[in-house]
Amino acid sequence: MTLDGAIQSRTTTSSSTMRCWRTCRSATTPSRSVCSSSAAATAALSGRCCATRTSSAGIVERIELVDIDGAVIEQSKIHFPQIACGYADPCVTAKVGDGIAFVRDAPDNTYDVIIIDTTDPEGPASELFGLDFYSNVKRILRPGGIVCNQGESVWMHRPLIEKMLHFLRQDVGFASVQYALIYIPTYPCGSIGTLVCAKDAGHDLTVPLRPVEAITGTAQERFHEKLKYYSSDMHKASFVLPRFAAYLNDETKK
Amino acid sequence: MTLDGAIQSRTTTSSSTMRCWRTCRSATTPSRSVCSSSAAATAALSGRCCATRTSSAGIVERIELVDIDGAVIEQSKIHFPQIACGYADPCVTAKVGDGIAFVRDAPDNTYDVIIIDTTDPEGPASELFGLDFYSNVKRILRPGGIVCNQGESVWMHRPLIEKMLHFLRQDVGFASVQYALIYIPTYPCGSIGTLVCAKDAGHDLTVPLRPVEAITGTAQERFHEKLKYYSSDMHKASFVLPRFAAYLNDETKK
Repeated sequence: MTLDGAIQSRTTTSSSTMRCWRTCRSATTPSRSVCSSSAAATAALSGRCCATRTSSAGIVERIELVDIDGAVIEQSKIHFPQIACGYADPCVTAKVGDGIAFVRDAPDNTYDVIIIDTTDPEGPASELFGLDFYSNVKRILRPGGIVCNQGESVWMHRPLIEKMLHFLRQDVGFASVQYALIYIPTYPCGSIGTLVCAKDAGHDLTVPLRPVEAITGTAQERFHEKLKYYSSDMHKASFVLPRFAAYLNDETKK
Repeated sequence: MTLDGAIQSRTTTSSSTMRCWRTCRSATTPSRSVCSSSAAATAALSGRCCATRTSSAGIVERIELVDIDGAVIEQSKIHFPQIACGYADPCVTAKVGDGIAFVRDAPDNTYDVIIIDTTDPEGPASELFGLDFYSNVKRILRPGGIVCNQGESVWMHRPLIEKMLHFLRQDVGFASVQYALIYIPTYPCGSIGTLVCAKDAGHDLTVPLRPVEAITGTAQERFHEKLKYYSSDMHKASFVLPRFAAYLNDETKK
């Protein structure tokens, strides 16, 4: 499947798992509501992965997925059932629409977690990398809420990452913004990053507040062993950046 | 430059820096002697990187580099001066010869650190991935010594990694063997690994014994800030593996 002319990876193990679980396990509250937006001017295949990953543990009460292209949803169900199976979860609501409009029109203080999984920043998805969009994202997050995005490559896109870090910290006013790395062999340069933002202060994003290994209960017992990539140790290690990029996570210099 | 038909990467920032510094800063003694073997039936370009990286801090007394092809050394000096500059360091001795024979003939208890940087395990370098070679490597390490190698990809070569972990722990008898990851955008899948082995027990390879950030003195002051990839935090994070591979570092199951 290609979106905006770019082949979409079928490697969901590391990228979507890390984005979903790192974010959900960092939220102050137990992630009662998740908005997984892969919309705007286009839709990203990985949005479907996120719904599947977050719903599969049965520990999120409600997930709203917003996708701009309904055909992508339907084609995913046919051709990528292993990715699209999250749609069958009763806690998932999939909406076809523009993610920018959705975020603009959503009420204040609504979501515990927002996962933004976009195509590249050049082209139809460019507004999803902008100040206005993130201002609304922060507004619709509940207190203690967390947002993460598709943060591009630390090897190729540091100017974009620096620009986003600046406006997310200075202009939007997130209390903490950290860049985390994910190994993913099918992406250019073999890794992708994500900018993780905390709405409120006193929140160390680099340490999971509620470790996935502690999930217990009949249905979810030993759930963490089913995960292929994410662990609490990987959560912490992902925020450690090579020395050439370590300045990105130095919030004393923001 | 191609060696054994494979293009050799010029990206030395992460791969050779991590292999050299992670190993040197883990040795029990302050790495008075280093044997950087990129030899055997062929030679790897990165062997030259290792000599440059380890000598550049001026904190290693003696480095012996063994390379099977003298032409590779000379061509590297001409075409890759930024990599080959380590040869000019008076502590570096470059020998042209077969690394397997070199290790076989070396006296017991000679080196604090051995860095093995090979081409792929299929073909001329295959013996450098074998039991006999590593038995001699352990024999010629001093007490407290460390060896690391080119450990292939955790995404593509887990059967080889498992096989090597088994014989390094069970048959060669290294006290500890751990696999570490390095982001490197020009390698297949965007990462490479290294098997790091400690000759003696009581050695946690995942924590630098002598943090590079603590190097002081006139010549080396703030030396660590010149490194582009390695840091003590990256050292520790590199041993954290995705959940699907975490069993590789579980030494309770060896």
